[in-house]
Amino acid sequence: MTDRPDLASATDSFPQTLPDEFSFIRRHFRRLAGKDALDLTDDAAVFTPSPGKEMVIAADAMVEGVHFLPDDPPDTVGRKLLRANLSDMAAMGARPFGWLLTLACPKADSRYDDAWFEAFSDGLAADQALFGVSLLGGDTTSTRGPLVLSLTILGNVAPGHALRRNGAQEGDGLWVTGTIGDGALGLLALQGKVADPTGWLAERYHLPRPRLGLDLSGIAHAAMDVSDGLVQDVGHLARESGLGARLDVDSVPLSDAARSIVTDDEGLALCLTGGDDYELLLAVPEDRTTALLSHCQERNIAVTRIGEFVGDAPGVHVVRHDGSRFPLHRQGWSHF
Amino acid sequence: MTDRPDLASATDSFPQTLPDEFSFIRRHFRRLAGKDALDLTDDAAVFTPSPGKEMVIAADAMVEGVHFLPDDPPDTVGRKLLRANLSDMAAMGARPFGWLLTLACPKADSRYDDAWFEAFSDGLAADQALFGVSLLGGDTTSTRGPLVLSLTILGNVAPGHALRRNGAQEGDGLWVTGTIGDGALGLLALQGKVADPTGWLAERYHLPRPRLGLDLSGIAHAAMDVSDGLVQDVGHLARESGLGARLDVDSVPLSDAARSIVTDDEGLALCLTGGDDYELLLAVPEDRTTALLSHCQERNIAVTRIGEFVGDAPGVHVVRHDGSRFPLHRQGWSHF
Repeated sequence: MTDRPDLASATDSFPQTLPDEFSFIRRHFRRLAGKDALDLTDDAAVFTPSPGKEMVIAADAMVEGVHFLPDDPPDTVGRKLLRANLSDMAAMGARPFGWLLTLACPKADSRYDDAWFEAFSDGLAADQALFGVSLLGGDTTSTRGPLVLSLTILGNVAPGHALRRNGAQEGDGLWVTGTIGDGALGLLALQGKVADPTGWLAERYHLPRPRLGLDLSGIAHAAMDVSDGLVQDVGHLARESGLGARLDVDSVPLSDAARSIVTDDEGLALCLTGGDDYELLLAVPEDRTTALLSHCQERNIAVTRIGEFVGDAPGVHVVRHDGSRFPLHRQGWSHF
Repeated sequence: MTDRPDLASATDSFPQTLPDEFSFIRRHFRRLAGKDALDLTDDAAVFTPSPGKEMVIAADAMVEGVHFLPDDPPDTVGRKLLRANLSDMAAMGARPFGWLLTLACPKADSRYDDAWFEAFSDGLAADQALFGVSLLGGDTTSTRGPLVLSLTILGNVAPGHALRRNGAQEGDGLWVTGTIGDGALGLLALQGKVADPTGWLAERYHLPRPRLGLDLSGIAHAAMDVSDGLVQDVGHLARESGLGARLDVDSVPLSDAARSIVTDDEGLALCLTGGDDYELLLAVPEDRTTALLSHCQERNIAVTRIGEFVGDAPGVHVVRHDGSRFPLHRQGWSHF
C-alpha cells in the first residue's frame, strides 16, 4: 500500500466531495451503466436472468503495447476489447447483454488524463448503443506498469444452441466469415511499414467487427472466433474435435486493401498467422452449405470455404491449390 | 505485437504440442474448471441460471505492489483476490457459484515461473473447495509491467433479497462484523514495522475471511463490505443512503493481536483507514438488534455496534466516548 497516494485533503469529518477514484468512476463510467448496475455504487450488480435461456460468459484482457498501441485513439481502445469479447459471444451463437470492466491505470503516465478517459468512455458509449449492451460493474486501480484492461461479457443463448469447438466432423467444410489479415496489416500500417491509403486496414486493427446476429446452431457443427491467427485457431478447432484440417491458402479471403499489399508468400503468411481478425471459423457439413450461404447472404456477411476437416492426419495442413505445402514459420500468437 | 514472442518452433503442419500459452492454461487452470467452463477450451462458458433466483455479479482487480507484495506466498495471491470478490457477494447477501480470471503476467520476471503458478493454483483449488465455487473462464496475456489479476465473481440471491448500500435509515445502528485493522497491521508486520509473533496479522493481510453464509435480508436495511478503510466505507454507506453517520472509535472491535500493537491514536487511525478488512458494515434498525445478534451468534460471527446513522449532518463523524472528535488525516485508500 506504500505506493498508494494519500488523499490530498485531510479531514476528520469527510466533505461532500468524493475520493478521487470514485469521482473518476462517476465522471466516466456511470453514464455507461445499465439499471442492473445499480449506478455502480454498490458492491455488485443484480439482475434477473432471461427465463428459458442459457447464459454465456467470457473474459479477455488487453495490455498497452501488446494488444493496442500507446498512441491508439483513446475512443478505440475500450471498444477494441469490448468487440473482442463480443466476438466470443458471436462464436458461441450468443446474444450479448452486459459487461464488466476492470482498469489498471498507469498513475505516472500523464497521457492517461481526464480527456483520454472521456474519449475512451465516448467510444464505449457508441458501441453500447450499436451492440445493445450495458455496463454492469467493474473496478479501477493504479499500476506502475502499462494500462491493463480486463473485460467480462455476458450473453444469452437458447438451451442447447451454443456453438462449441468440439463438434466438427470428418468431411465438414472449413469456412470463415469476412476477410483475414486486415488487423495484422493494419498494425503494420500504423507502424508505417505498409501503405494504407484508405485507412481500411488501420480501422480493422482498431475496431474489429464482431459477427453477431448469425444463428448457426442448425447449420454449423462447431465454431470459434479467429483472434490469435488463422492457422493456430484452425488448429484449436480441429484438435478440440479430435480431427485435423486442410487449409487451402489460395482460398483464404483477403480484402482489396490487403490484396494490394500482399504480393508474396511472406505477406500471405502474415495474414494467416497475424491475428486480430475476429472473424468466425465454422465447421459445416456439405449438405448444409446452401443453408449457410443463404443465411449469411441475408445478413450481408461474406463467408468463404477455406478447407476441410480430415480424420486421418492431425494438425493443420496448409496447402496450395496444387497440393504443395505452404511455408509457415509460426502458427499464431502465444503470450508465453 | 512487436513485443510478443514468436513460438520457439517453426512448423507448417502444427505438432501435437500446444502453444505455450494454451499449455500453461491446461497445466494450471483446467483443474479448477467446473463443468460449465467446457474445460476452458471454448470461447466462453455456458450455464443454466438457477431458476427463480436473481444473479449477482462483480469484478475486482489486484496489482502486484499495490494490493499484494511481490514476495507474498504465491498460494495466497489468487486467494486474496478471490476472497475480496467473495466479500462483495457476502455484502450483497448472495451465494457465489462461479468466477473468471484474467492474468497479465510479467514476461521478463523470472519469479513467475511454473512453480509459482502451481502454488497459485493450489491456493485457488483449496478455496474453491472451501467456498463451493468453480472457475468458469478467463484469459492470460503478457505485460512488461507488474502482475495484474482481474476476477469476476457470480452468485445467486433470492429475488428482492440483495442487500444494497442505499437502504440505511436515520437512527439505524451501524454494525460491523469481526475485527478491524488486522489487514493493515498485517502489511506493516510483513514489512517488519510491527511485531506479529503469532502470524495472525500477516494471515489476515494474505487471506481475508469473506463473511458468507449470513442471511440478513430481513434484518439489515443496508450493507457493504469494508475494503478501502472503515471510515471511507462508512462514508459510502451513509452517502448512498442520503445520511450521515456517527462512528464511535472506542467501540471499533480490534483483535487481541491488534490491541497489543495499537497503543496510540496513530495506530488506531491506521486501523480505521487502512483497508483490507473485508468485514461487513450493516445498517440495522434498533428493533432488529436481537435478531441480528442471534443470527450472527448461531453462525459464530462476531458483530459489534460501532455507531449510528444520522439525518441532520452529512459525512462521517468520528468521535470518542466523550463526544470529542477523533483526529484523522485521511479516510481510506483511493487509487487516483
